[in-house]
Amino acid sequence: MDYQSILNEIYDEIQPHLDEGKVADYIPALAKVDKSQFAMTVTLGDGSSYSVGDYEKRFSIQSISKVFTFTLALKIYSKALYHRVGVEPSGNPFNSLVQLEYEFGKPRNPFINAGALVITDSLISHYKDNYNALEAILNFIRDITDDKSICFDAEVAYSEMEHGDRNLSLAYLMKSFNNFENSVEDTVMTYFKHCAVKMNTQELSRSFLYLAFDGKDPISEKEFISQSQTRRINAVMLTCGHYDASGEFAFHVGLPAKSGVGGGIAAVVPGKMSIAVWSPALNRYGNSHAGTIALELFTQKSGVSIF
Amino acid sequence: MDYQSILNEIYDEIQPHLDEGKVADYIPALAKVDKSQFAMTVTLGDGSSYSVGDYEKRFSIQSISKVFTFTLALKIYSKALYHRVGVEPSGNPFNSLVQLEYEFGKPRNPFINAGALVITDSLISHYKDNYNALEAILNFIRDITDDKSICFDAEVAYSEMEHGDRNLSLAYLMKSFNNFENSVEDTVMTYFKHCAVKMNTQELSRSFLYLAFDGKDPISEKEFISQSQTRRINAVMLTCGHYDASGEFAFHVGLPAKSGVGGGIAAVVPGKMSIAVWSPALNRYGNSHAGTIALELFTQKSGVSIF
Amino acid sequence: MDYQSILNEIYDEIQPHLDEGKVADYIPALAKVDKSQFAMTVTLGDGSSYSVGDYEKRFSIQSISKVFTFTLALKIYSKALYHRVGVEPSGNPFNSLVQLEYEFGKPRNPFINAGALVITDSLISHYKDNYNALEAILNFIRDITDDKSICFDAEVAYSEMEHGDRNLSLAYLMKSFNNFENSVEDTVMTYFKHCAVKMNTQELSRSFLYLAFDGKDPISEKEFISQSQTRRINAVMLTCGHYDASGEFAFHVGLPAKSGVGGGIAAVVPGKMSIAVWSPALNRYGNSHAGTIALELFTQKSGVSIF
Amino acid sequence: MDYQSILNEIYDEIQPHLDEGKVADYIPALAKVDKSQFAMTVTLGDGSSYSVGDYEKRFSIQSISKVFTFTLALKIYSKALYHRVGVEPSGNPFNSLVQLEYEFGKPRNPFINAGALVITDSLISHYKDNYNALEAILNFIRDITDDKSICFDAEVAYSEMEHGDRNLSLAYLMKSFNNFENSVEDTVMTYFKHCAVKMNTQELSRSFLYLAFDGKDPISEKEFISQSQTRRINAVMLTCGHYDASGEFAFHVGLPAKSGVGGGIAAVVPGKMSIAVWSPALNRYGNSHAGTIALELFTQKSGVSIF
Repeated sequence: MDYQSILNEIYDEIQPHLDEGKVADYIPALAKVDKSQFAMTVTLGDGSSYSVGDYEKRFSIQSISKVFTFTLALKIYSKALYHRVGVEPSGNPFNSLVQLEYEFGKPRNPFINAGALVITDSLISHYKDNYNALEAILNFIRDITDDKSICFDAEVAYSEMEHGDRNLSLAYLMKSFNNFENSVEDTVMTYFKHCAVKMNTQELSRSFLYLAFDGKDPISEKEFISQSQTRRINAVMLTCGHYDASGEFAFHVGLPAKSGVGGGIAAVVPGKMSIAVWSPALNRYGNSHAGTIALELFTQKSGVSIF
Repeated sequence: MDYQSILNEIYDEIQPHLDEGKVADYIPALAKVDKSQFAMTVTLGDGSSYSVGDYEKRFSIQSISKVFTFTLALKIYSKALYHRVGVEPSGNPFNSLVQLEYEFGKPRNPFINAGALVITDSLISHYKDNYNALEAILNFIRDITDDKSICFDAEVAYSEMEHGDRNLSLAYLMKSFNNFENSVEDTVMTYFKHCAVKMNTQELSRSFLYLAFDGKDPISEKEFISQSQTRRINAVMLTCGHYDASGEFAFHVGLPAKSGVGGGIAAVVPGKMSIAVWSPALNRYGNSHAGTIALELFTQKSGVSIF
Repeated sequence: MDYQSILNEIYDEIQPHLDEGKVADYIPALAKVDKSQFAMTVTLGDGSSYSVGDYEKRFSIQSISKVFTFTLALKIYSKALYHRVGVEPSGNPFNSLVQLEYEFGKPRNPFINAGALVITDSLISHYKDNYNALEAILNFIRDITDDKSICFDAEVAYSEMEHGDRNLSLAYLMKSFNNFENSVEDTVMTYFKHCAVKMNTQELSRSFLYLAFDGKDPISEKEFISQSQTRRINAVMLTCGHYDASGEFAFHVGLPAKSGVGGGIAAVVPGKMSIAVWSPALNRYGNSHAGTIALELFTQKSGVSIF
Repeated sequence: MDYQSILNEIYDEIQPHLDEGKVADYIPALAKVDKSQFAMTVTLGDGSSYSVGDYEKRFSIQSISKVFTFTLALKIYSKALYHRVGVEPSGNPFNSLVQLEYEFGKPRNPFINAGALVITDSLISHYKDNYNALEAILNFIRDITDDKSICFDAEVAYSEMEHGDRNLSLAYLMKSFNNFENSVEDTVMTYFKHCAVKMNTQELSRSFLYLAFDGKDPISEKEFISQSQTRRINAVMLTCGHYDASGEFAFHVGLPAKSGVGGGIAAVVPGKMSIAVWSPALNRYGNSHAGTIALELFTQKSGVSIF
């Protein structure tokens, strides 16, 4: 299959859609991003990769980082993790407190904000303090990307904290149900830092390769997580990776994937490849508008699907 | 792969679990079923099939019939169907009215009761009356199963109607939001009739084969629905096929599947096979207890997974 | 106190408000009512009464009839009634199913639709069939009004039934929780009939006098209900008489009162008087717009308040 | 009326109920209170007062303090206060976040926790900082009680703060909706301090007298708030004073009243008297068990009621 041609076609077809949607504007650091940008990279198991657009430009991966922290926590806690967070779709927006109150402070899944906060909290408990936990998260991302230069954008992280009231509210609610172990402020700050990691689509696509190959990086041959755990992470991405548009995304794209409010989406075709796409304008569910369309075009043109 | 040996192993390993769970007891016709029963069939694309247990014994397929009515309605209405029913997981029990009220009478997906009722209603509108609609549904099931003897159990259907208050409530609520076109009583009765269809695991497995092969029966070579629509049906089964345990099921089994309160579950491995399992005792989510375990064992032993 | 002058002042001051609000338009029989109409009557314990406006024109009392059916059911069942219906404000719109599902089919209070349906159902059980129950309700209203000519408007009742899907849904939901004893259709029809009773403000004010005088009509000296039960009916009117605007009404008007979608409101000043007001245009909570203002003006001008 | 005899009778009749219910145990300072205690005081407009039991023993007034902060904020902001907090019963527990999220951070009324936090926040804004605000609140309570010795229990306040996660969550949620102006931690601390005010039933009864006499203390003749605002405070107490048991309380007791988790309840009979009762064991709604019964006995024996 000529992936480069497919990406080139997508690049042309996506142009009229770059004007649509709306860049996240709740913090200045994200609001000032130019919405006409677009990048896409496909990485195969043999290490070959194909890119189009602004694929060398790093962006804020935001919620995509939740896949990395979930992987790390699953590796550490295994099944015990599910005492603190579930694996069901929530059917509600990413930052809703309603279900969390009805369900006694146990978040539905690791990809809604409450779930990701609990995961970060569990990592801080394991690594003893928030500095060590953040370092472990960053090193894990550097490992799977095979790139030591990955870092986070402090301006974005602190800017998020200034607008972090909803996440503080979620964390305190979980604390009131005894499902939070560390300082709420420190944990939310650590969460914002790992969300502020910057990657380009080449790096992001590379970093997801282990999820397409049963937990083992087919290039470095490092095993990051077991086959069975990998399949479960992919299952949770499929059912919960796009908040209350997860069903729509599975329906239209048909691949396990995770999106971030910075406009990135990372997806896997099990046994075959990983894909990263970026375009900053979002649809009404908070997922990249052009990115979602690009992934749907890719599955149509390449025929890949898990279904 | 020696599927017969795998099924035999599963049969042995499942025995201690047949005592667990609880048979549906809301109607006498289902309550009297012996819970020690178990059957499983795998059907491959070449028509070969492997079975174990009570695989010739027919049971009430119940909600599994929603996959057939969804297929039929999707064939007829195509995208227009989505004006009346969504494709998102609901995050709520199968018969909840809460979300339906908040979302103005549009059910989240075709597999919760409200969604399936709207689908049945749409079929009655298309086929002009409830008798024709039921006949069309039965004939479609006979076609995909390649078996003219498929029929429904009238005793079960009328017994359901006697306990049908919740479904009548759901239908009237949708009617109050103008999302119901035909007589509520007639439609609910037709719905109970197609839910009361009886099949054994051999027949059920056979009937799902078109979903494993892009909409086309690989044996008869009849095309029932397009590749793209097939993938979408499978995606909805994965995200919404097991009510508020859909995430758990995707997580543990990793296959598109649909369960019914009669204890049946039908699953597909795209490009490879379809699987049916039956055991009447249910877990707390209303899905077959032993059936769910058997499918998890099958994926572990055979290594099949979409992830 | 010169009540006639107060009413005359209110009549003048209310004129500019008669254009505001919106007549109930969900059934033709109510939609065609001229919104410029206004009437108000005050009846004192000595039988003297003061009126202004269209006080001889009968209108559909609608939900105000729920006070009469509640009185009758309380007389019959006493405390046992509270097994089937509560006395708490619902905090939700009058026809919501959400709380009813969460609270297992027991309505919050007798004045939301679900509660009033259960009350009607209990009266049908007591009087053996729906005809007798309706007759008993009508006779009770005739008794407290001391007027044999009170009747209901069949056109309104049947027109309601044609748009009765939401109420049928509520009733079937309660039936699914075993909190409904009689035929859903017959009971809903009986409910619509007692809601379609027609009274003018003179009659309505007269009919509420027993609630201002501890359950005993001070004119006829008939005792309709005990002092303690009367106080409880008044308490429920105050906390629940205006759906999700009950707090606002208590706050602004400060009297136990019940409104109907036909534009009527009946209120009591315990130990002193009963008041009826009518103006068909409704505010956004479904209560008479001018009627609410008129009652607030009356309490300001007369100084009456329970607080 | 011989109030002393009525109180003596109640004292005897209440004894068997003192064993029932459960003392608030979420903080040690409250958990250690002896549940057999009981006190009741009635204060008339002429300054005469009647007491029974432990009426000189101060207890934590907790949520009863919300009546005082509401009065103060209403005096300062008048109608503008209602942009930030409503006057409707919530129909939900006192610390629920559900409604607050659905209603965009505007609490239903000033007596649920969220509403009281917004009121405290508004007072801090007015008095420039939390120290001045607390001083103003304490001085207001000293004024209406005519007792300079009223103070708060610092141990209780700091103990509450250690278990204050739910309130911090509520405050951050409102902040995320821009309905919170000051530091969340400082405001919640100030809130806990005014909740920790200690009074005995003599003092508490005295402090509520202005609410029974149109906002004017009949003894000192000081006017604390207007007649119209007083009536509205009383209306909100009646409809919202007891969380999700407000309807039950209005139904059984029939007086505007406010309860606190420390076991106190203060009530008013407009134009006649104020009443305070204390007994630390709570019913399942968090209101004093024996206190509620004592007030119901008082209304039966004395015949007072607003209905």
